[in-house]
Amino acid sequence: MPSGPISFSSRPTSIGRARLGTLGTPHGAIDTPQFMPVGTQASVKSVTPADLHLIGAQIILGNTYHLSLRPGAERIARLGGLHRFMAWDGPILTDSGGFQVFSLAHLREVDDEGVTFASHIDGSRHRLTPESAVAAQEQLGSDIAMAFDELVDPSRDSAAVAGAMERTHRWAERSLAAHSLPDQALFGIIQGGIDPELRTRSVAAISGLPFDGLAIGGLSVGETKAEMEGTLRVVAEALGDDARPRYLMGVGSPLDFFVAVEQGIDLFDCVLPTRVARTGQLWTSEGRLNIRNSRFQDDPGQVDPECRCETCKTFSRAYLAHLFRAEELLAYHLATVHNLTYTLDLMRGIRAALADGSFASLRNTVQARYGNAESRTKRPVTDQ
Amino acid sequence: MPSGPISFSSRPTSIGRARLGTLGTPHGAIDTPQFMPVGTQASVKSVTPADLHLIGAQIILGNTYHLSLRPGAERIARLGGLHRFMAWDGPILTDSGGFQVFSLAHLREVDDEGVTFASHIDGSRHRLTPESAVAAQEQLGSDIAMAFDELVDPSRDSAAVAGAMERTHRWAERSLAAHSLPDQALFGIIQGGIDPELRTRSVAAISGLPFDGLAIGGLSVGETKAEMEGTLRVVAEALGDDARPRYLMGVGSPLDFFVAVEQGIDLFDCVLPTRVARTGQLWTSEGRLNIRNSRFQDDPGQVDPECRCETCKTFSRAYLAHLFRAEELLAYHLATVHNLTYTLDLMRGIRAALADGSFASLRNTVQARYGNAESRTKRPVTDQ
Repeated sequence: MPSGPISFSSRPTSIGRARLGTLGTPHGAIDTPQFMPVGTQASVKSVTPADLHLIGAQIILGNTYHLSLRPGAERIARLGGLHRFMAWDGPILTDSGGFQVFSLAHLREVDDEGVTFASHIDGSRHRLTPESAVAAQEQLGSDIAMAFDELVDPSRDSAAVAGAMERTHRWAERSLAAHSLPDQALFGIIQGGIDPELRTRSVAAISGLPFDGLAIGGLSVGETKAEMEGTLRVVAEALGDDARPRYLMGVGSPLDFFVAVEQGIDLFDCVLPTRVARTGQLWTSEGRLNIRNSRFQDDPGQVDPECRCETCKTFSRAYLAHLFRAEELLAYHLATVHNLTYTLDLMRGIRAALADGSFASLRNTVQARYGNAESRTKRPVTDQ
Repeated sequence: MPSGPISFSSRPTSIGRARLGTLGTPHGAIDTPQFMPVGTQASVKSVTPADLHLIGAQIILGNTYHLSLRPGAERIARLGGLHRFMAWDGPILTDSGGFQVFSLAHLREVDDEGVTFASHIDGSRHRLTPESAVAAQEQLGSDIAMAFDELVDPSRDSAAVAGAMERTHRWAERSLAAHSLPDQALFGIIQGGIDPELRTRSVAAISGLPFDGLAIGGLSVGETKAEMEGTLRVVAEALGDDARPRYLMGVGSPLDFFVAVEQGIDLFDCVLPTRVARTGQLWTSEGRLNIRNSRFQDDPGQVDPECRCETCKTFSRAYLAHLFRAEELLAYHLATVHNLTYTLDLMRGIRAALADGSFASLRNTVQARYGNAESRTKRPVTDQ
């Protein structure tokens, strides 16, 4: 294993391939399994860094695609890097922009060298290559950078999926060769769609490279729950006892965490808890709650009786129902604080359950609350 | 003077009619002169009650018109009153809805009994009378309620202004007769436009009634600075040594405070600091600053080097410039925190300057920073 800017130690548990670990970074240690709130544009929408600490966030994610377009990675570098720019002193992982180029940008032209695309903001033309994506992340100064990968529409034929995967492997080597920032880790991304053979080949190619960690891309993009779980199994088997941290990109929902943790996943990110919060969907110990439902207008109770967050400690369901109806900005803040607290506390609960053997019991409880109408949420095209 | 639910003691200063005072309410004491942030729809936009305490707010304002339409004053009463509903434990003043009925509602029909109007939200028909406006404020449970008044377009002829004033006087008596909540103060509103004779008559009528405090309405609605200052002089002279607290409604901007304090005003409210904050206009010790100006994109300095607020302590101008360009929700929060802190600290500075004799010096400093391009800002029709 390469020695790098991060450290990772984990121990197996009694639950499948699930493990408990500690990931050390230049900006502090992270308990794993862990969820990373998404701060697309150098801001986790509607909350401050002080809020994030209160919520219990240990690491957040920034999007290289967005930050490169606005305000620009060079500008952030001149201003002292992403940590100083957004005033977050904890660890940051940046993605490489690969996902957004393929989900958000327009007029894509992919060649073996890189991708040319039009900005979703103003239509201006830009180009990302493995080298420029790594350079941008070095300018941002994140603790963990990601290799540049090619994503394809999962409904394309297997030749297209295989072609993108092979290109991702070549780009992985180029990302590694281009990376030189000593205080920044670099993770590789495993692709291959939902084809077991392709996934196995991708694990071999990516895990054979001296990355500091390994990510699983190309999931949570429209496949069924069974397909996601099957693919995670294939990847986990192929990875065997690889000791590096494993990051499942773009997942997830409360039930997804259990499926993935059991397959050995250590890190998650997803816009879901923050995005649905802003529509009034609150995640609680009693299941999903749509605060816009008229029955909450007279409900003096707290959003989640079991929650420790400032929203639940301070305000009633009736007040949140009013704020959403009145389209008050405070609504989005209070709902975001709650959903992130729920998600991070669920992850803490999962870690505790892995430690004390109550994982199956916790999973059953959450399944009972979230099992109905759990939709396979396609990863939203606008991050956050 | 009537004994009521509030107490007010003030002492004269060396500056004109300016005075320093303490206003006691059922939810705590207020240093005067004081500014009240506006929480139109049971929320000071984008900030929490905890933020308001950090900012230094001692009292906030709620709008009876907005709250009656949504979520409803009866609903708030069932939920324990406005303090509990919005989780603000400090003093609250509610206006009577008079201003909003005349600035915001549609299809107004005024008769001597009251006003029938169409909601600006959904066009539904509603009616407000002095009795129902007082009843709504009793349901909200504010510390200070306002009598229901009639406002007219200040460009109307003097007969129209006089007619609305006379009706306001009749409605003042009916508001007093209708008011019965022992823990709530009731303030009367002086009208009369910018006509000295009408204003003098209105002072006599309103100050002759047993209100707990006196407000000056019908200013900051498009008149010139000289007209406002002249009217304040007329009112102050007519009030003489009346010992009750004096509240100038809908004012103001940094320079307006000096003009009004010198004429003996104790309380202010205005949507300006919060409303302009959300457009990127920041009030600083160096004057107005439009954070959307491109020169701030690379400025690592803090918004206001002399400010104590969380925004200034934590973030750079460059970061705020980015948040506004990216239309991030956090932009509106951070700008609001700053502008309210500036306003409340300016008011604290005015109190200190009244105490130590440096009022003229402080006024000159602020005049130098805010004197240019100070526009007579018409009170915005959408409160906040």
